[in-house]
Amino acid sequence: MTELTVRAWGTTGFAQPLEPVTITRRELRDDDVRIRIEFVGICHSDIHTMRGDWGERSYPLVPGHEIVGIVEETGPAVTAYREGDRVGVGCFVNSCGTCDACLQGEISYCDEGPTPTYGGYDGDELTQGGYSQAIVVRESFVVRIPGGLDPAAAAPLLCAGITTYSPLNHWGAGPGKRVGIIGMGGLGHVGVKIAAAMGAEVTVFSHSAAKREDALNFGAVRHVSTADGLPEDLRRHFDIILNTVSVDLDTAAYLGLLRFDGALVQLGLPAEPLQAPARMFTQQRRSLSGSLVGGIRETQEMLDFCAAHGVTAEIELIPAELINEAYDRTIASDVRYRFVIDAASF
Amino acid sequence: MTELTVRAWGTTGFAQPLEPVTITRRELRDDDVRIRIEFVGICHSDIHTMRGDWGERSYPLVPGHEIVGIVEETGPAVTAYREGDRVGVGCFVNSCGTCDACLQGEISYCDEGPTPTYGGYDGDELTQGGYSQAIVVRESFVVRIPGGLDPAAAAPLLCAGITTYSPLNHWGAGPGKRVGIIGMGGLGHVGVKIAAAMGAEVTVFSHSAAKREDALNFGAVRHVSTADGLPEDLRRHFDIILNTVSVDLDTAAYLGLLRFDGALVQLGLPAEPLQAPARMFTQQRRSLSGSLVGGIRETQEMLDFCAAHGVTAEIELIPAELINEAYDRTIASDVRYRFVIDAASF
Repeated sequence: MTELTVRAWGTTGFAQPLEPVTITRRELRDDDVRIRIEFVGICHSDIHTMRGDWGERSYPLVPGHEIVGIVEETGPAVTAYREGDRVGVGCFVNSCGTCDACLQGEISYCDEGPTPTYGGYDGDELTQGGYSQAIVVRESFVVRIPGGLDPAAAAPLLCAGITTYSPLNHWGAGPGKRVGIIGMGGLGHVGVKIAAAMGAEVTVFSHSAAKREDALNFGAVRHVSTADGLPEDLRRHFDIILNTVSVDLDTAAYLGLLRFDGALVQLGLPAEPLQAPARMFTQQRRSLSGSLVGGIRETQEMLDFCAAHGVTAEIELIPAELINEAYDRTIASDVRYRFVIDAASF
Repeated sequence: MTELTVRAWGTTGFAQPLEPVTITRRELRDDDVRIRIEFVGICHSDIHTMRGDWGERSYPLVPGHEIVGIVEETGPAVTAYREGDRVGVGCFVNSCGTCDACLQGEISYCDEGPTPTYGGYDGDELTQGGYSQAIVVRESFVVRIPGGLDPAAAAPLLCAGITTYSPLNHWGAGPGKRVGIIGMGGLGHVGVKIAAAMGAEVTVFSHSAAKREDALNFGAVRHVSTADGLPEDLRRHFDIILNTVSVDLDTAAYLGLLRFDGALVQLGLPAEPLQAPARMFTQQRRSLSGSLVGGIRETQEMLDFCAAHGVTAEIELIPAELINEAYDRTIASDVRYRFVIDAASF
């Protein structure tokens, strides 16, 4: 076969609304997998990119990096997947393969920057994301969706799932550990479920009390409404706090909630620098760190973990026609908790 | 026996020069060790405390927490030490013993704050430090000075040694690891020797080039004069950077020198908050952390390590009469690299 033309939704210029476009997918290389997309999640970073918050890109541009679909065809060197398999693609489709991080399988920290699933360049090819009928991805960046996971509700795991699972895993969440999750949006609500499934004691920090009941249903033991300030009795309580929100927070105050050797891990990118007095670090050997998505092997591990523990995202399934409206609602935090697009509507 | 009166040097009021004073040492309890002090180091924190930088204390106050001496007498329950043993006492003489950190032997992170060797309260007793003829300390806060270590040059290991060894040990310094040490004063020069003895590649960051030759002699492979800025070719180079200085530095720039999973560890307490953009943490899963001295078991491990590798501090041995002058010279960085007082002169 040759290049494939597929229907998609994207923008044709800077900060334009999304509309139907057509794009081409490359001819299968030896190690490529072509996937007929079933579902694709709407991630906050899609909105930032498409609405121009992160600068101008090449157009037309099709977003989407929470992709679930069915293998349609494989290149001759592909061994792990075959036609009919349900698979997923996340935030990245290539990396240098030779730096420290890549050699450890931690491709999201690739020294040269991993190739994003959309809006980046894979060699000369502008990558186009999953708001489309099909995608062609090299085998080593494809993961398997385990049976038993609802494919639509599993789509957000490819970004929101691994982005929370990876730091929880790295910093040792599990029985006896106390985890705080700041923000319970698309990322945070999956983080709560995963941390609880790992056996940790989970506390949600959320501005309002509106999501308290959901937080407890997702497995949290405690919901703190931060509009009332941080409770004194949680000082030196936590082993791990994940900050899933991108607004400017009082970093020092959250560090104060960490016990000995605790870690505050930044997942979002607020505009202002993070800051805290040196004593907040020296006193309890606390650390401030950050985490960016996760590797492919770890993504597969996360999916298998989620299948074993019945963890998926809470989603609202929409047709492509509602993408622009869904963007507005996501910005307004009017979604519980992730929009997923039915790819049959492209 | 009863309380013992000993000669010492201390201050009789806020921010006064040091002068000869007499203090009492408590009657031996069952688990106490009385030590005839041979040598005591002058630590920067002695100077901060005595010159009033850290606020008013009770007076008279005798500083000194880098103590080496000979056991003179032991309480009936003491099993680890006996008369004639050469021992050391560091920064702390008690802790709660029941918090997370204490239960892990990490007494310097005690939730209630460990009892400092001077200027704190151990029950009702105002603690008095090692600028004195003798000290009484509970057995569990005493360490053994291994044979083969010069006792005067070993004294600074009780603070400067453990304060650098502990984070190097915790963050895994060793063969194949790249360690940066910011500042080569009392703390830093011991850190360079220890990190090199651990097998790490060591780089010194120092304002001027004046200590370049010493740095290389202590085991560093590279000396960077920071007056010229940070070299681009060391970007993403380091696994661990210890900041031993208390001046305000460009935290973000040093984070940029860390490779994947690297840690910037703060040992001093600069006046201004540490700050860096969130992306400096997320990009390479870097962390900013702090470390405070170390535990008693780890102090013993450090001393044994230093004995095995021939590591001691570079010292200038002085009589008590020169303490105030030595303070001035330490502030002026006019010491290579630690003053140690000969306790025979008290």
